Amino acid sequence: MPANQQFLLDNRPAGEAVASNFKLVSSETPPLQDGQVLVRHHYLSLDPYMRGRMSDSKSYTAPQPLGEVMLGGTVGEVVESRSPRFQPGDKVVGMGGWQLYSVVNADEPGALRKVDTSHVPLSYYLGAVGMPGVTAWYGLVKIIEPKAGETMVVSAATGAVGSAFAALAKARGCRTVGIAGGPDKCRYAVEELGFDACIDYKLHQDAASLSKALKEACPDGIDGYFENVGGMVLDAVLPRMNAFGRIAVCGMIAGYDGKPMPLTCPALILTSRLKVQGFIVTEHMDIWPEALKELAGLVATGTLRPRESVAEGLEAAPEAFLGLLKGKNFGKQLVKLI
Amino acid sequence: MPANQQFLLDNRPAGEAVASNFKLVSSETPPLQDGQVLVRHHYLSLDPYMRGRMSDSKSYTAPQPLGEVMLGGTVGEVVESRSPRFQPGDKVVGMGGWQLYSVVNADEPGALRKVDTSHVPLSYYLGAVGMPGVTAWYGLVKIIEPKAGETMVVSAATGAVGSAFAALAKARGCRTVGIAGGPDKCRYAVEELGFDACIDYKLHQDAASLSKALKEACPDGIDGYFENVGGMVLDAVLPRMNAFGRIAVCGMIAGYDGKPMPLTCPALILTSRLKVQGFIVTEHMDIWPEALKELAGLVATGTLRPRESVAEGLEAAPEAFLGLLKGKNFGKQLVKLI
Repeated sequence: MPANQQFLLDNRPAGEAVASNFKLVSSETPPLQDGQVLVRHHYLSLDPYMRGRMSDSKSYTAPQPLGEVMLGGTVGEVVESRSPRFQPGDKVVGMGGWQLYSVVNADEPGALRKVDTSHVPLSYYLGAVGMPGVTAWYGLVKIIEPKAGETMVVSAATGAVGSAFAALAKARGCRTVGIAGGPDKCRYAVEELGFDACIDYKLHQDAASLSKALKEACPDGIDGYFENVGGMVLDAVLPRMNAFGRIAVCGMIAGYDGKPMPLTCPALILTSRLKVQGFIVTEHMDIWPEALKELAGLVATGTLRPRESVAEGLEAAPEAFLGLLKGKNFGKQLVKLI
Repeated sequence: MPANQQFLLDNRPAGEAVASNFKLVSSETPPLQDGQVLVRHHYLSLDPYMRGRMSDSKSYTAPQPLGEVMLGGTVGEVVESRSPRFQPGDKVVGMGGWQLYSVVNADEPGALRKVDTSHVPLSYYLGAVGMPGVTAWYGLVKIIEPKAGETMVVSAATGAVGSAFAALAKARGCRTVGIAGGPDKCRYAVEELGFDACIDYKLHQDAASLSKALKEACPDGIDGYFENVGGMVLDAVLPRMNAFGRIAVCGMIAGYDGKPMPLTCPALILTSRLKVQGFIVTEHMDIWPEALKELAGLVATGTLRPRESVAEGLEAAPEAFLGLLKGKNFGKQLVKLI
């Protein structure tokens, strides 16, 4: 059996996550049982939700157990199969974790999915045509329920979720405004991702200043907001929301290190009659086929051209992940493993 | 024409509202024009939303203009009519304001509604079978959407909205828990209003302590919360919400004096996948007939026996209103004018 390399969660962060929370180990992949397949990973996906799993606090899912392989989405190729459902050479997407190979029980529903790489590059199944894309779709279509002519705003605009959100919102005839960090990302959002405007939050010291910039970029107010960040950005958006606005809460990365992150003026939820709703896309598997179909179509026609930030080799995963938490990535953060 | 007495808003509160914000004046009621009726008010309703209108800040409605009669719901009797739609002696509910008489354009949609006092006392049309009752109905039925066996919580539990909420939630097979101020209100909530439990928030110095009491009163967590208060109470409820819980935001009386009232941990909206939605019942007139029918039925059968706190005479209105903002009322706050 081939030699595997794995990153385990060795210890939990005290405050900010650090590289020494992870531990690299070598192991042999075990022999396959009936119904199992061996997958060689081509790409590992790094996503903000992983930070939540590293902590032991009450959250929506069980924490990542210590001493086990860090969880994570992967795309790769079947190299050995004892399942009639998969053949060596099949391209697959699954939750293989931070390692070079994974052994998967192929009969477990949703464990492994064959994908077609004739029109969509394999790595995109971890981003625009994968979990992040479906996340954008669910928040926009099922929570925000946009109407043509409305104004949509998304934070972390050039990330995997934000770029899919822009393409989906533009396809519905909405004015689409991003919030991102730095002039390069903002320029890219407008020139490449189709945003009508993008605000650099790093130019603003406080919520009042950012809110003023939002007012200029959204002259008709904000009808839908897709929240990836929380903290000051949410404080800045809230006063700009129109009556009956909808906020889909997908992430609050600003608070992942345990910093207190209060909402300054929740009374605006009442005075503007807002709907604020949190969600986790893996709890809504029924909408994935419809969402993936639209996203694959947007990619195939070139409407959605997601950017990727690719780290080379499994050893690079921890630093790439810590950078992602600080917004150092530019587009979907991947680790290339082959 | 009869002599009228009126309370005008004389000046806006700087912080806490005070009696000198209001000014009592005498006047003659003007002669009726075609289509107008003269109503003698029997009861004036005092409600927390009035505090919001006294300020000049951006809110969901225009502020109460200075120098004009304070707005407010009233029930009374038609004493003179130049409208074919109303006869002297008709019992009516309307928005007559803080005064003894009002002249109403009877053809204006929704301006005046005839009511039947054979099974429902006239004053109830300002409470359980009026705007507060419909408010409870909308939040429960349209936002929280309760299922039998779920746990519902309401703050300001013995008020007009809270007592209607309890009857409506119990009718749907829910465990119903109140939050109120003081042992008398809590005992009354359980013994007379049908709450399964009621927590005295005055026994708790902080959100953590109140949250612990909620955990004991709601052993299966909270599925629906109707918010009248905000501040510490909302901070205490949020960690007790079950996954996919719903919060109807009707009022945030704790912040009406302009005190900053942050929400300590908005990330719980994400981790518990909550829906938090603000609403104003007068924007949903389509549901009033259905809601009023159910509420009148609950009153007629004795299931809903709302308590009233009655101040005597128009001069008593300012002190009664300021007491209401501090929770000094016990049940629906009215001013008897006849």
